[in-house]
Amino acid sequence: MDKYVSIRLDRSLEKPLYVQVCESIIELIEKNILLPEEKLPPIRKLASLLDVNTVTIVNAYKLLEKQGYVVSRVGSGTYINPSILLNHQNLSKALSSQGVSLQKVSENPGVFNDSSPTPSNSALFDDISNVRSAIRYDFAGAAISPEFFPVEEFKEVLNEVLDRDRGYAFGYQESMGYAPLRKSISEFMASEYNITFSPEEIQVVSGAQQGIDIIAKAFLNYQDTVYVEGPTYTGAIDAFKSRGAKIVEIPLEPDGINIDELRSKLKVKPPRLFYTMPNFHNPTGYSYSTQKKKELIALSRECDFLIVEDDHMNDLYFAEKPSPLKAMDDGGNVLYIKSFSKLFMPGLRLAFIASRKDFAVKIADAKYYSDISSSGLTQRAMDLFFRKSLWPEHARRMRKIFREKWQAMNGAIEEYIPPGINYKSPGGGLFFWLELPQGYYSMNLYNEALKYGLLLMPGDFFYPDRRPSNGFRLSFAEIAPENIRDGIKLLAETIEKLFQEYKLNPLRGKNFRPLL
Amino acid sequence: MDKYVSIRLDRSLEKPLYVQVCESIIELIEKNILLPEEKLPPIRKLASLLDVNTVTIVNAYKLLEKQGYVVSRVGSGTYINPSILLNHQNLSKALSSQGVSLQKVSENPGVFNDSSPTPSNSALFDDISNVRSAIRYDFAGAAISPEFFPVEEFKEVLNEVLDRDRGYAFGYQESMGYAPLRKSISEFMASEYNITFSPEEIQVVSGAQQGIDIIAKAFLNYQDTVYVEGPTYTGAIDAFKSRGAKIVEIPLEPDGINIDELRSKLKVKPPRLFYTMPNFHNPTGYSYSTQKKKELIALSRECDFLIVEDDHMNDLYFAEKPSPLKAMDDGGNVLYIKSFSKLFMPGLRLAFIASRKDFAVKIADAKYYSDISSSGLTQRAMDLFFRKSLWPEHARRMRKIFREKWQAMNGAIEEYIPPGINYKSPGGGLFFWLELPQGYYSMNLYNEALKYGLLLMPGDFFYPDRRPSNGFRLSFAEIAPENIRDGIKLLAETIEKLFQEYKLNPLRGKNFRPLL
Repeated sequence: MDKYVSIRLDRSLEKPLYVQVCESIIELIEKNILLPEEKLPPIRKLASLLDVNTVTIVNAYKLLEKQGYVVSRVGSGTYINPSILLNHQNLSKALSSQGVSLQKVSENPGVFNDSSPTPSNSALFDDISNVRSAIRYDFAGAAISPEFFPVEEFKEVLNEVLDRDRGYAFGYQESMGYAPLRKSISEFMASEYNITFSPEEIQVVSGAQQGIDIIAKAFLNYQDTVYVEGPTYTGAIDAFKSRGAKIVEIPLEPDGINIDELRSKLKVKPPRLFYTMPNFHNPTGYSYSTQKKKELIALSRECDFLIVEDDHMNDLYFAEKPSPLKAMDDGGNVLYIKSFSKLFMPGLRLAFIASRKDFAVKIADAKYYSDISSSGLTQRAMDLFFRKSLWPEHARRMRKIFREKWQAMNGAIEEYIPPGINYKSPGGGLFFWLELPQGYYSMNLYNEALKYGLLLMPGDFFYPDRRPSNGFRLSFAEIAPENIRDGIKLLAETIEKLFQEYKLNPLRGKNFRPLL
Repeated sequence: MDKYVSIRLDRSLEKPLYVQVCESIIELIEKNILLPEEKLPPIRKLASLLDVNTVTIVNAYKLLEKQGYVVSRVGSGTYINPSILLNHQNLSKALSSQGVSLQKVSENPGVFNDSSPTPSNSALFDDISNVRSAIRYDFAGAAISPEFFPVEEFKEVLNEVLDRDRGYAFGYQESMGYAPLRKSISEFMASEYNITFSPEEIQVVSGAQQGIDIIAKAFLNYQDTVYVEGPTYTGAIDAFKSRGAKIVEIPLEPDGINIDELRSKLKVKPPRLFYTMPNFHNPTGYSYSTQKKKELIALSRECDFLIVEDDHMNDLYFAEKPSPLKAMDDGGNVLYIKSFSKLFMPGLRLAFIASRKDFAVKIADAKYYSDISSSGLTQRAMDLFFRKSLWPEHARRMRKIFREKWQAMNGAIEEYIPPGINYKSPGGGLFFWLELPQGYYSMNLYNEALKYGLLLMPGDFFYPDRRPSNGFRLSFAEIAPENIRDGIKLLAETIEKLFQEYKLNPLRGKNFRPLL
């Protein structure tokens, strides 16, 4: 217990005590005071030492486990994760980026070895390099590899804009966005998806996350209710919660939201907003049936709520071209967010919101006090990219590249993944969602797989309450095509191993919670 | 009254009825149904026609007047502004941009006349061109003219970054910001302003407005109190109000905040945040005395509140180099926001927040769910711009250019502006704040001056409650140096005229409110 006496809690902070305890223990781990495989003290003992309720320690240990710092062993106790060196760096990153991207891909360590004046960025990149070399199969990263970015084409349009507009390329822009870009977008959406909205109905934003945040600002009052799918992209939940919203989760099924559950919740209290990814959903890859899309829109009119449609990936279809909800939105209840970052160049931060004109005015106000406007240079370059028809060309190329990976995933999963695992092959996007049998816990699979250098995203991170989940997400965004087959085979073996191990400690049953 | 029967109010909307009335009247004006110089109906009559309370009409007329659509004539009534064609287009823009920038400069109408594939953007630009040709002296615009942007240098660093980092320049960035840029910023602040903070204390944001918005998210709970200076930059107030904060105004004096007033307000209820621009304040140009800076910091520790220091313009000093509050902040109570956009290239959207490490973590979270990260390409280019020491060079050049304009302003104001007008020459920045004698109303001066093609910013827009103000802001950001003298002379004549006119209708006195 001596190792824990240095922990100091500050009861005057807003930060809950269990989070403080959790962070203090992480600090001890990071300073190598606590070592891999070391057992954490019994809950009562630590509670007594720190003069807190036992529940505080229980919650702190739970949080540590969720973050991958500790593992619980049934009937034995809680231990520092033996694979912690790999583990905490990755998972804490994954946590913070919630599957949008693992940050390890973002900083390009290689760059600092060349002759450019950029300095070597020491600690951070050393860590990342360690992790990278240890991970052989990355099914967690959700960002498209930089090698696919149309850098040369974009450089050309950038320079063309600079030569054309000179200083004006760097002046303030209208809050709604650069007018010619809004026109280009409206033409693109009409020709590509048969949806017509005028430039005045379009708000340019800095990525889909900002789209969500700005909609939350424009439409949510304190304590309003927001419905979300379970599982969902929790970055959206953070934005809603930051507005003081109450989150209600509606279960998602392979063909869309559970309509009965939705109806029964609506009877209690309709939400202000319903947040959905109706096509190639993150994390499940599921798409709504046409029937469910229609029912959702009808319900939004009947019960007077707005639908936030997050179209994060519609351009990456491998079979049928998907139809956005917005295309069926005759009443104007859909606020449509389309990201160009995800399939294109995430660092550009570019997306738009399309909505009814009266909503667009509210949205522009919220954009104004959020950050005035998005970068004018980026908007001008993107506009030119559209005008030169480079976007559809890029999307076509991406579809070709990722269709091959998707086929490899389909084949390998069919061949190797053992019976008892549920999944549905997605029609597009970058994700497969697999479900362990009821009672199994994907965080255990995550921990086990990590030992062999395989990364996946446990389902926990996609639920509003971060509860233990039997589902997990496999992304084929970052893994090399030639590694897919071996990776899935290794995953299958790990699952079999998990089945064997947990046969001895049956955890099945409705009330299963991981033990501490 | 026939012209008003088409007005339809929708009581089911959240939008207040008086705003709906106001907007309906604007529509009538824009459709040329209501004409310049036409008298609005008496309040009771319109209230009765629309079946609303008379207060609703009073407020609608007030709002119309604030937006410059109507003018009130003492003892006579309210009229459609005779200079409405000029007026509403400008002022609505000025309103929306609150003195950060008039949008008319942002879109570069010229660009659409050349051979580039960008389309002519018809209506909007036609309007703007009309306005531009009618405005001879623009003392309202607060954005530095694009001709001063270091376009060539920036183009070079952009291309260097693209060649160096390729696709990585477009990948996701860390939420806190590109690490080498944070290092460059910390070195710059140490060498230039003698403030040391580590890269881990720096959060890169997309412009100062986003800095304010993110601080509001990270630190404000619903119904928390925020103190602001009166007058102040109301874009900040919008961000605070969006969090459900209560705004309390503390009067600003030429040497800083009124400390007695501050103390007495603190006794009632200390705020969570105090928002201040201690150097070259917007709109007044005032700077805090060292004594007042110290007292403010001491009070923040004594009464446990945080100070949001908005350093929007410190690099543009004409005499002594100003010291940020942050330099005196031994307790870590100052959240320091520094914009690189304003003096550099506003469309880049780049600023940073420096704060204590534990705060920086909260701020990074709020940044994450706001928009994940700022543009990686911009950050990398800005980093290189710093490393090549181009920033200090640019700042020096800007000081030289604007010092000359500042001197011209000083000379002309001293020579022409009649006695009875209060002002204090600023030590830097872009703004002079002039005050009409008590009881005069700067909106009247605005309307009068506009007839002669002179634009200024009435003080109303810089108060939390937008109340009528006798102060007004003169910016020398956009006016050509050779026009300053004539512009100020014209302004002086207009003031004399106002004095003459209103002598007949004495409006002085504490309880003055513009009549409707």
